[in-house]
Parts: sequence; C-alpha cells; structure tokens
Amino acid sequence: PRRIEWSAVAAEKEGHKHFMHKEIFEQPRAVADTIRGRISLEQGDVVLDGIELSEAQARGLERLVVVACGTSWHAGCSGAQMIEALARLPTEVELASEFRYSDPIVGPRTLVVAISQSGETADTLAAVKEAKRRGAPAIAICNVVGSAIPRECAEAKEPGAPRGTLYTHAGPEIGVASTKAFTTQLAALFLLAVRLGRLRGTLAADAARTHLEALRQVPLWMDQVIRQEPSVMPVAKRCAQARDVLFLGRGAQYPVALEGALKLKEISYIHAEGYAAGEMKHGPIALIDEALPVVVLATKEPAYEKTLGNMEEVRARGGLVFAVVSEGDTLAAGLAEVALTVPHAPPLLAPLLSILPLQFLAYHVADLKGTDVDQPRNLAKSVTVE
Amino acid sequence: PRRIEWSAVAAEKEGHKHFMHKEIFEQPRAVADTIRGRISLEQGDVVLDGIELSEAQARGLERLVVVACGTSWHAGCSGAQMIEALARLPTEVELASEFRYSDPIVGPRTLVVAISQSGETADTLAAVKEAKRRGAPAIAICNVVGSAIPRECAEAKEPGAPRGTLYTHAGPEIGVASTKAFTTQLAALFLLAVRLGRLRGTLAADAARTHLEALRQVPLWMDQVIRQEPSVMPVAKRCAQARDVLFLGRGAQYPVALEGALKLKEISYIHAEGYAAGEMKHGPIALIDEALPVVVLATKEPAYEKTLGNMEEVRARGGLVFAVVSEGDTLAAGLAEVALTVPHAPPLLAPLLSILPLQFLAYHVADLKGTDVDQPRNLAKSVTVE
Repeated sequence: PRRIEWSAVAAEKEGHKHFMHKEIFEQPRAVADTIRGRISLEQGDVVLDGIELSEAQARGLERLVVVACGTSWHAGCSGAQMIEALARLPTEVELASEFRYSDPIVGPRTLVVAISQSGETADTLAAVKEAKRRGAPAIAICNVVGSAIPRECAEAKEPGAPRGTLYTHAGPEIGVASTKAFTTQLAALFLLAVRLGRLRGTLAADAARTHLEALRQVPLWMDQVIRQEPSVMPVAKRCAQARDVLFLGRGAQYPVALEGALKLKEISYIHAEGYAAGEMKHGPIALIDEALPVVVLATKEPAYEKTLGNMEEVRARGGLVFAVVSEGDTLAAGLAEVALTVPHAPPLLAPLLSILPLQFLAYHVADLKGTDVDQPRNLAKSVTVE
Repeated sequence: PRRIEWSAVAAEKEGHKHFMHKEIFEQPRAVADTIRGRISLEQGDVVLDGIELSEAQARGLERLVVVACGTSWHAGCSGAQMIEALARLPTEVELASEFRYSDPIVGPRTLVVAISQSGETADTLAAVKEAKRRGAPAIAICNVVGSAIPRECAEAKEPGAPRGTLYTHAGPEIGVASTKAFTTQLAALFLLAVRLGRLRGTLAADAARTHLEALRQVPLWMDQVIRQEPSVMPVAKRCAQARDVLFLGRGAQYPVALEGALKLKEISYIHAEGYAAGEMKHGPIALIDEALPVVVLATKEPAYEKTLGNMEEVRARGGLVFAVVSEGDTLAAGLAEVALTVPHAPPLLAPLLSILPLQFLAYHVADLKGTDVDQPRNLAKSVTVE
C-alpha cells in the first residue's frame, strides 16, 4: 500500500500539543478562507470559482449523487440536506467503495459530486471515473490543489458538460483525524447548494442573501464554541473510562452524530457509534446501561422535542446523557449530565458548530488515554489503496 | 408508550427453547409461502397480489423511495439493490424517522415503498402519510394483515394511482429480534423488483425466469444452512466473551453486515456494528485488536477479492476473523479462524442465505449469556410511538 507522506518540516504546531488541536483551532480561519471571495451579497448569489455549470445544465439535472468515503462521506450527508433544501434536487450520498461496484444508474442528467480532502482517495477517484464512463458529469470538492480527483474532474467527457473543482481553503491538514477539512467541506457544500438553488430558480435572491449572511457569521460562532473548550473536560474524563459511546442526532445533526463517533473511534480506539435518534428504539436502546455514555445532539431544530424524548428514554434506563444544546436552552440542558452549548444557527449550518465540541471531546479523550493523536494506529491520512 | 402485546397462548414454541430459535427454523417455509402463487415461470413474470400498478405507471416512475425502520430498513437496503439491478429505477432507502421531517422531494412519479413487519411502526406510517400528502403514490410490504400501514396504502390520493400491500406470509413473529420477517421481506422485494423490471421493459422474460427459478431454490438452500447450525457454536462462544464485534460486507452483503450487527446488539447487548468493508480503512480499522472479533461476509461476489484483502488487513493487525463464505471456497475459508459456509446463490439473493448464520450467532451468544432472548431489555416488538 502506497502512502502519501507528509513533511513534518513544513508544518508547525505553533504551541499546540498536537496538530489535531491546532487544526481544530484553525477552523474559523479555514471556513472564512473557503467562503471569502465567493459570496456576492449584493446579488444574493455565489461565485463557484473553478466549477463550470450553466443555468440550463443546472435546471436540466434530475439527481445529484455525492460519492465519498469516511469523514468526507459525512460531509456529503450534510451537503445532501443543504442541496435538497435549497435547490430541491433529489440527492443521494453513496460510499465510493460501494458506488463503483454497484452498476450505478447515472447519466448526463445526474451530477456527481466527489468529496475528498486529499483528492487522492482511491475509491472516490474510481467512482468518478465510473460515473464519467456512464456519461455523468462530475465535479469535485477537494483541499489539495492539483491532486488526482481534481485532475479527473478538470475534463468533461462531453464538451461543455459540467466539470471542475471547488477547492476548500483549509490549508494542509496533518492530523489523521480530519477536522478543518470537514468543516470547510460543509462550507463549500453550502455554497454549492445556494448556487444550485439560484441557478435552478428554487431560491430567490433575498432568501439566498439571508443564507449567505448566516454563513458569513459561522467563523465568529465557531470562535465562540472554541473558547468553551474547557467545558468539554468533564465529558472527556467520563468517556475516557468508557469502552463504548453512542452518539445520537436527528436531521441536520444526524451526520454530526456519525462524524462525532468516527472522530472518537479513530483516535481514542473507543467503540463509538452514531445513530439517527429515531432509530434508537429499533435496536441500540438495548445497549443502554450505566456503563454506556450517550452523547445527544439536541440543538433547537425541527423534531427537537422528539430528541428530548430520546434523552428521557436513555435516562429512564440508567444511561448517562451528555448533550450539545443551543445557547440558553435550559430545558435540553436539564436533561443532560453535562450540556455543551453552541450558538443558535440556521439548521443547515448547525453542523459547522455542533461538530466542534465533539472534535474537542475526541481529542481530549485520546489525549487522556495517551494514544498517538496525530497518527493513530492502523490509519493513514489518505487512503490511496482500494 | 403504547405497546402491541402478543398473546402467548396463541403461539407455541414446538420444542424450541425460544421463539426466536423456532422462527429462524421457520424461514424456509415462510419464504416458500411468501413466493407461492406469485411466480409464473411460464410467463417469466410475477403476480403481485394486492398491488395496483400499471405498466404505464411503472414506466413513468422517476425514482423509488423505501421508507422503513430497523430491520425493515436493512431489508430495504437490499431491496434497493434488487430494484436498481432489475428495474433500473434509481432507489433511495430512507429511515422513516428522518424522511418524515426532511421536507422530502417526492411527487407523482416517485413510488414510495413502506416496509414494516407489524404494519404499525409509527414513524413509517407517518412517512407514508407525508409522502401521500405530497402527491406520491405509496405501497407497502407488511406481515400483519389489516394493520395501519396497509390500511393507509389501500387508498390512493389520486384515483387510479399505485396503491396496495404485498403481504409477507411469515406468520406471527413473537421474538422481538426479527428473523423470518426480514427474509420474507427480502423475498417480497425480489418479487417487486422482478415485476418492476418486467413492467418497465428492463428485464426480459427469459432473464426473469432465471431469477425466479433461483428464488424458488432459496427455501432449499436455507434448509441446508439451517442444518449447519452447530458450526456456529465456536464463533458464538468466542463472541459471547467479547464486548464489541464488527461486521463487514460489500455490495449485497453490506446490508447483511448491518442486520447481523443489529441482531447481536438487540439480544446479547454486545456492541456490534456493521460497516461497508470498503470503509474499514477510513476509521474502524483503528479499533482492531485481539479483543475485537470481526465477522466478514466474504461470499463470492463482485469485489470479492477486495473483501479478502480486508480480511488480511484485519489479521495483520491481530484481529480475529470469522467469515461467511461460499461453499467450497477454501481461499476465503483459509483467511478465517472459523468459516461458516452458505450455498452459492446469485448475488441479489445471497442475503437470504448469509443472514442465517448471523441470526444463529446472535441467538447462541444471547443464550450463552443468559439474556432474555425473546424479550430483550428496553425493546418492544412494534415501535408504535415516535
């Protein structure tokens, strides 16, 4: 297996104990860089530099299929919600390793969006090639300029068809557990969703402006959450003693639950699993006992009351509930052993904030356990083998 | 929370220690009953009694969306592969608890298929109502005749639109962990996929005949697997000592990995998790050590070699591999500590066989641990609350 090696010389920790910690802190800057120059508030629209996609093409689309792996797949799950909400385009999110062998039903009116931090993920690259072979146009969201997936997406199979790459401007990511790549992918997907909505006529300029103004606030909101890092410590100390942790979320917070679990799994070796909160009663609730911490994403969103009900069910069965709640929400906070707060944000942007305490949680659990945070066992930064 | 109670008087264990064990053994009969009278080999077609769906309607469909929860959702994941392969209709599988609050993009040319053993699952019923409200036709696959979801699907919103229920003929299922409901749902979905393929002209009569002849063999193949029950015991003894177990599969076996993990979780309270094998390198591989048994579905199918590669990777990291392999496949068996064999079957039907050893595994682990197999803690047979 070939591995992409990083140069430790080029990167500095700047006073942080680990690169991952530094990269968590960099996220407000990274998200600001990713949206900078791409928003026109005056026109209520987005400039997707690097992407070729006409209004006629956008209006002619029947479906959008995201292909990705790991953390990028979680970003894709959030992105699908953004695109369905703002551009009313049915969107599926496929694991690249499944898509490529699935005899996929895609063609000229299916836009394939590949997401990969490194741009070198082998299965994602193969998925793009498979989609293009079947006549589907493909674009990419990547962080590393000039990498394999952007090169593949630079040329359309049919002249004039959609093509190109929207780069995240996260800067080099050294920690194997992806943090700033994830949140910048979310920002890029939000830009794509707004642009698709404008092109397809499903999103008026005024509504787009409101969405984009909220997006511009995200770096400030992220700063607020990052300043609350110490509030994570009691949760981290408890989870560091656990062998298993469940993460629950609904709607916009469901992908965050998956991503929060993956972070913890990757660097602390705790068996964390993310679940749609509504599925809890269909199986995972059997696991609940006093030895199993449950982290619930309970920000104020549609179906929020159902999530509070899930918290009560976990408590009724002796489970230990930690929660991420909206600032000032004493009701949700009252149902949790420890509540971590995030600023109010529109639901589609909430994942950019609620993932931050979960990144800190994974980081501090791993640090308490003394694992190799930046280079966890068995994992490579870029999976360039299939 | 209202619970549907079952009458213990009406059901007998017939010499089995638990209802779940009896129901595992009933599957060849249940699947045979579900396909009986619905296959015309002469015409190479399927009669979907109870479903109204014309050729013009089937050809006019743009998408199919499956809504379900828990085990039925896993059946839907397999069914989507069957429908995409045979009817070339893009198919999404949504968790009902997510779909209903997601402002879903469905309309007259989206066929919604609700799957629920009891026909009373609250979120699935709500998802059907939401879909109909948006003008989408809905049909159901249920086991309990006259239950709420079949009643909802009996009437189309638009006169003449697709409607109705395809009943599985599993008979009453008493064990909370669903077994024969799952395999009969798979059989019903296969029938639906063949019928859609015939109606849409994507499946010739000869090809359909071949598929249906294979389906008719399934009960015999299931009998063969069931006779090998004792071979599961060494795996069960090892897993009973574990706190966590991973299940890996690709393609047709990916939903089986999810379902196998759910069975174990539900009744043994072991934290089992199912993963697409191709995702292993994007996170879960960090968990692998000698304390974590990994159950790999490694039957001979597309991308089979990649799955063998995953087995080697787990072994190289000290992990303990158990596998479900195709009869006579000494290569795959050689990579596993213990290999459980299943007869060769076409990939789309393979889940009906490979789930059986996993059902036995969950059952015997729970029995060894002395849990209440038929009535596991915290779980109700039908989730009639939201």
